[in-house]
Amino acid sequence: MRALVLTQDGPVVRDHIPELRPGEATLRLEVGGVCATDLELVRGYMGFEGVLGHEWVGIVEHGPAPLVGKRVVGDINCPCSECSTCHAGRPTHCPNRTVLGIQGRDGAFAERFSLPPENLHVVPEGVPPEAAVFVEPLAAACEILEQVHVRPTDRVVVLGLGRLGQLCARVLATTGADVHGVSRSPGKLELLPRHIVGHTLDDVDFVRGSDVVVDATGSADGLALASSLLRPRGTLVLKTTVHDLGKVNPTGWVIDEITLVGSRCGPFGPALRLLASGAIDPTPLISAEMKLSEGVEALTKASEPSTLKVLLRP
Amino acid sequence: MRALVLTQDGPVVRDHIPELRPGEATLRLEVGGVCATDLELVRGYMGFEGVLGHEWVGIVEHGPAPLVGKRVVGDINCPCSECSTCHAGRPTHCPNRTVLGIQGRDGAFAERFSLPPENLHVVPEGVPPEAAVFVEPLAAACEILEQVHVRPTDRVVVLGLGRLGQLCARVLATTGADVHGVSRSPGKLELLPRHIVGHTLDDVDFVRGSDVVVDATGSADGLALASSLLRPRGTLVLKTTVHDLGKVNPTGWVIDEITLVGSRCGPFGPALRLLASGAIDPTPLISAEMKLSEGVEALTKASEPSTLKVLLRP
Repeated sequence: MRALVLTQDGPVVRDHIPELRPGEATLRLEVGGVCATDLELVRGYMGFEGVLGHEWVGIVEHGPAPLVGKRVVGDINCPCSECSTCHAGRPTHCPNRTVLGIQGRDGAFAERFSLPPENLHVVPEGVPPEAAVFVEPLAAACEILEQVHVRPTDRVVVLGLGRLGQLCARVLATTGADVHGVSRSPGKLELLPRHIVGHTLDDVDFVRGSDVVVDATGSADGLALASSLLRPRGTLVLKTTVHDLGKVNPTGWVIDEITLVGSRCGPFGPALRLLASGAIDPTPLISAEMKLSEGVEALTKASEPSTLKVLLRP
Repeated sequence: MRALVLTQDGPVVRDHIPELRPGEATLRLEVGGVCATDLELVRGYMGFEGVLGHEWVGIVEHGPAPLVGKRVVGDINCPCSECSTCHAGRPTHCPNRTVLGIQGRDGAFAERFSLPPENLHVVPEGVPPEAAVFVEPLAAACEILEQVHVRPTDRVVVLGLGRLGQLCARVLATTGADVHGVSRSPGKLELLPRHIVGHTLDDVDFVRGSDVVVDATGSADGLALASSLLRPRGTLVLKTTVHDLGKVNPTGWVIDEITLVGSRCGPFGPALRLLASGAIDPTPLISAEMKLSEGVEALTKASEPSTLKVLLRP
């Protein structure tokens, strides 16, 4: 069976015998999505080697009877369920966790792969695989509302309108807040729905003094710009993980009493409900669909500045 | 009248005619306290020139009749009361504010100075001036509890046990939380009350995985160490303002979903109540008392690593 594997010498598509762990469900890939984190992994982030891929929709081939044959998505964190962090109710932060296609566990860009059955969520009827494949980054966008009370009267700025930024802007707009997106690329501004206001970088003076600013730039420079757009006592949500060291001056955060919230993976339930209700349609963000056998080319395509989501099919 | 004045050529004690603004109360200095911020101002922070001093106790000489002759302390931020930030209930962040001895307004290290009467708080009976002079930094310590819900079951670490760190540790311990203080100096650990656990830097492994960590190191390196002591989803309170740029890697904050809270000035009412009840006795932190005429020497003394609080008397 074929898989897109990250080796010491870079990513390759090759034959791969999936490691199907006992007690886990076996999944057949329907469609995968390339994420910025995949590109960071290729650059050396986390020191990962193995099958890439953590955004996916699949069909359960083997597993608990009620799930077999169902179209599912799944939480990518596999906690140990035994340590104090798990017992404290923070399983996604378990220090012994493996993470699908990111840490200690082969990912989903393969014809077959496996996950614990408790990680799986059945895709609601009416949500096509091309939409459901966005559930992992959409859940990461929902995580912001899990962590921060965004008020309907707030002005919210999303900095960076790549894959994740586009979804964050749409999720934040569900609160009724006045949401603005900022990108250096006019093409990405055009993708925003009408109720979200777009600004180029030349234009950011209009959104200084905002209540909440999300850094989804994926760049080490994003944090400083995000800080400069906040009002005193505002909240900065940090989504950017960069392999390079960032440089910031935290003194301004003290003087302005900023709250900064690091935000990572999120809950799948709300993300699936937003897809099922039609409140969020992520499919305009699809830039290209490619074959798993073209996986290396798909990573190159995904790293081009104008590309949003690249889907992979087996 | 004599004052400790920060000039372009550094701090000097010289004759000074106080600027007594119309409508403000005139105050006679009883005792002042040298703060780390004064030392930062001397190094160029904020570009301030004028009379230094924002920790003080004084007697009202002229002002509203009920206040005349009273021993008072006072909020150091003087907002415009007219802008949108003031109207939004954040007067200490007013962009037009002046700040006593820090920004656009002569400070308290002078025989006479002035503040708006609404900034003044009468010192409760039984609180001596040597304790009341700590009210401003004690209020800054109380600000942490105004911003962060510290639970009685939390483990809290205060990093840096200088003037402000010592007060933060004492205020945080009022919650019943398990409070630990970390300092490179054994002398500062000995000053901790018995219910606060002291650790040297060699010893910090014991407090990894803490719920709340306060960076009160006053050093650009404090933030990275503070980050490393937090549990996933823990809260980092940042009290350090440094003139130099800090260097941090914010990626860890995203992965661990850290909340970072910048924390500055705080409310005087709770601080005065903690002094009046005897819950906090700051007087063991007094390292030296000097004359206002020795102000330049007092700044030097306050900058020695072993010194905690230096008081100034007219």
